[in-house]
Amino acid sequence: MGVNRQKWREEYSRWFDWVIEEAEIYDYGRYPVKGMGVWRPYGFQIRRRVLEVLRELLDNSGHEEILLPLLIPEDLLRRESEHVKGFEAEVYWVTRGGDEELDVKLALRPTSETNLSYMESFWIKSYRDLPKKFYQIVSIFRYETKATRPMIRLREVTTFKEAHTVHDSFEDADRQVGEAIDVYKKFFDYLGIPYVISRRPEWDKFAGALYTVAFDTIMPDGKTLQIGTAHHLGQNFTIPFEIRFQLPDETLDYAWQTSYGVSDRVIATLISIHGDDRGTILPPNIAPIQVVIIPLPAKTEEENRRVKNYVSLVTETLEKLGVRFRVDDREEVRPGRKFYEWELRGVPIRIEIGLREVHDKTITLARRDTLEKITIPFDKLGEYLPSLFKQVEENLRERAWRWMKSNIRRAADIEDAKKIVEEEKGIVEVPWCGVVECGIKIEEEIGAKMLGTPIDDVKLGEDTKCIRCSKKAVTIARLARQY
Amino acid sequence: MGVNRQKWREEYSRWFDWVIEEAEIYDYGRYPVKGMGVWRPYGFQIRRRVLEVLRELLDNSGHEEILLPLLIPEDLLRRESEHVKGFEAEVYWVTRGGDEELDVKLALRPTSETNLSYMESFWIKSYRDLPKKFYQIVSIFRYETKATRPMIRLREVTTFKEAHTVHDSFEDADRQVGEAIDVYKKFFDYLGIPYVISRRPEWDKFAGALYTVAFDTIMPDGKTLQIGTAHHLGQNFTIPFEIRFQLPDETLDYAWQTSYGVSDRVIATLISIHGDDRGTILPPNIAPIQVVIIPLPAKTEEENRRVKNYVSLVTETLEKLGVRFRVDDREEVRPGRKFYEWELRGVPIRIEIGLREVHDKTITLARRDTLEKITIPFDKLGEYLPSLFKQVEENLRERAWRWMKSNIRRAADIEDAKKIVEEEKGIVEVPWCGVVECGIKIEEEIGAKMLGTPIDDVKLGEDTKCIRCSKKAVTIARLARQY
Repeated sequence: MGVNRQKWREEYSRWFDWVIEEAEIYDYGRYPVKGMGVWRPYGFQIRRRVLEVLRELLDNSGHEEILLPLLIPEDLLRRESEHVKGFEAEVYWVTRGGDEELDVKLALRPTSETNLSYMESFWIKSYRDLPKKFYQIVSIFRYETKATRPMIRLREVTTFKEAHTVHDSFEDADRQVGEAIDVYKKFFDYLGIPYVISRRPEWDKFAGALYTVAFDTIMPDGKTLQIGTAHHLGQNFTIPFEIRFQLPDETLDYAWQTSYGVSDRVIATLISIHGDDRGTILPPNIAPIQVVIIPLPAKTEEENRRVKNYVSLVTETLEKLGVRFRVDDREEVRPGRKFYEWELRGVPIRIEIGLREVHDKTITLARRDTLEKITIPFDKLGEYLPSLFKQVEENLRERAWRWMKSNIRRAADIEDAKKIVEEEKGIVEVPWCGVVECGIKIEEEIGAKMLGTPIDDVKLGEDTKCIRCSKKAVTIARLARQY
Repeated sequence: MGVNRQKWREEYSRWFDWVIEEAEIYDYGRYPVKGMGVWRPYGFQIRRRVLEVLRELLDNSGHEEILLPLLIPEDLLRRESEHVKGFEAEVYWVTRGGDEELDVKLALRPTSETNLSYMESFWIKSYRDLPKKFYQIVSIFRYETKATRPMIRLREVTTFKEAHTVHDSFEDADRQVGEAIDVYKKFFDYLGIPYVISRRPEWDKFAGALYTVAFDTIMPDGKTLQIGTAHHLGQNFTIPFEIRFQLPDETLDYAWQTSYGVSDRVIATLISIHGDDRGTILPPNIAPIQVVIIPLPAKTEEENRRVKNYVSLVTETLEKLGVRFRVDDREEVRPGRKFYEWELRGVPIRIEIGLREVHDKTITLARRDTLEKITIPFDKLGEYLPSLFKQVEENLRERAWRWMKSNIRRAADIEDAKKIVEEEKGIVEVPWCGVVECGIKIEEEIGAKMLGTPIDDVKLGEDTKCIRCSKKAVTIARLARQY
């Protein structure tokens, strides 16, 4: 009984809609506003645990959580001109309160650089206050004109973690982008999500940034998804918002900033990357329910009572271990149906308890990731389960990384790159001269978007040529069809 | 050195504005939209801990957390007519997306009965699904026409915990209101916040409810503040939203609902109720920083090093105890200034460490609630500190209850009641015939709002008469000047 991942890959889009609805994770499409969905209890618990991991990483690296208002007055949003150009087509505007027309239109935050910078101009006085690292986890709003997708392209992004930092020099902000990358690496590694890190090309950076670094992953259908970004904002916001600080020599200077964010897309990726035709597979470290116990019905009441007593012994052990578990003892539902439901929801370990287990004093564990069954003596459970959790996490992580890497390919020429993008999907890497005009042409000719270039030094042979203009290549460009 | 609570009471409003700004809890008034403020890092940590307590109480009583979209289409908001009448003057409307006028106006949620009921009509099928208890913690928006006050009367209420439940009978919903009251009692008791529980009069119940029960507290200036409400919604929403369920006999019926909420006001109360002229006083069970350690500067480097080593021994002990502490070793700030800052912020215990403590192997603890100093041997710290935390919590709780109770008075007649309300403030209790028209007159003549009547049976003498019409009184009415 092997793991079947055909539907998961070939019909990924339908697979995802089916999983989030059928597993009661996220109700999308029934909510009467396009591009907005509801986190249902099981989905909310996944989201809560993902956010706990993120908060811990941020808190432990000196970030302070805050909460800014949702509404941004129009003049604030317009103060940095590049920024507003990037967002204005997508801003929702509040224009009325009760029966009154508002004097000043209020934007639903598309992101919070502007209103936070405004507040920072009061808070930051001296080099002693710096660096300052804030974050908040909030809803953001984008009046998307592209086709919306649940959790992936929303009009209300309900889980936007945006970090904003302030520094006393360009270099320190540069260093901070590196710290952001480290935090996100740890975050994605914890979730077992593979990624490539690219410096976005000039024509695709964040509106108002000097440069943007992004994390992308490859979804089961071969399209890439941007799952995190970090921006060096230079002094682009600190000048119009007048965030000045006093240096040790008592002169004043404008501060430097960065911002970086992740969203609901991380949860969409978590659910999607670890999947198969039966549903999602959650790593034990993040699963709201790590173990589901299913008592198998026996023939007599006496036998059922013996099964029930044995279940109690097992739950006592799980409680001592601090395992998050559920006993599914619904009488009106058959075991087969229960297996289906919990597999769909991605509970990593299932324990079936029948008369045989009671008799043999054993535990039968079914792994969701490999669909293997393992039988161990009851008294080994406390020792075995934590190591099994680790094994499952590592298997999921390695499998996902292996799969992603097998979908990154080098192309020999434009035709080859085009073919890869069309037939094999995933990411194609090509040597590039680094000139913007040439990059844009490469995108057009291959029919894919440029994710950008590696952030680490790329070693190219002396005579490596740009795939398009044949001048000397200075770097590698990654291209893909993107979500 | 006694506790001075004069400013705290007589200039409460200014006191509160001063504390939340100076202690960097909540930045209000500088944000460029009226009625909206910013949770700063220290305030956010208070808020986070308050929400942790609330979440635990709700999760442990079978409530499931969800997250609904912020935006509600106009027709949904208008579907229950009493409800919309209660809110429509205060609704913010999104009318534009980018450059386009929206086809359907979208309300910023003032509360979520309507859009949740809409979703429940898909989710609830059978009596087996009931009762169902949901909650979410979100921002809500009210275009307030009354004067706004930080955390107390806002246009964006950033910390609205709204619970919504569905039941198979009137009685079960009634029972649920009782459960809500129990949950809130535990919540307020944990925070040491005293309360009176009243059934709101007919003319002041929630828009769309059969009846409303409310928790009120008395703020330091003698005005009452509503800090929690619970509503029996009957079938008022389930009929227009068609939430029907199948009974065991396979017939269909409309379900019954309740809703109950608390908000930022709980945090405003926590900060206010436990206060004195030096600032706020946080109970140790909720304080983000339970202990601040202040090393006192000595004369020589060698002496400073000895102090520093001793501080390390203390922090080791605190870490073992799992205490949330901070060492304030800023060199550029004098101890007196540090005392001021941490007292203002309400850190419940201060440990000062100087040469004397090093020499005597003692610990000097300053209690924020009583301003007492206690010196104990170092090796008693691990044993003493947890019990000291409990003492402080109990002292704060008892002091707050005592103060509130001393501000609830019985009036002999209307004149007396009026005088109490004007001069002594707080709550005045009067016997009442229970007739609506008479109640409204009592409000007018006393010059106060009716909080309502006790939810428990009131025992009145046979010949107790209504304070206004002199007919037989059936209950006690509580009146006060309200926020």
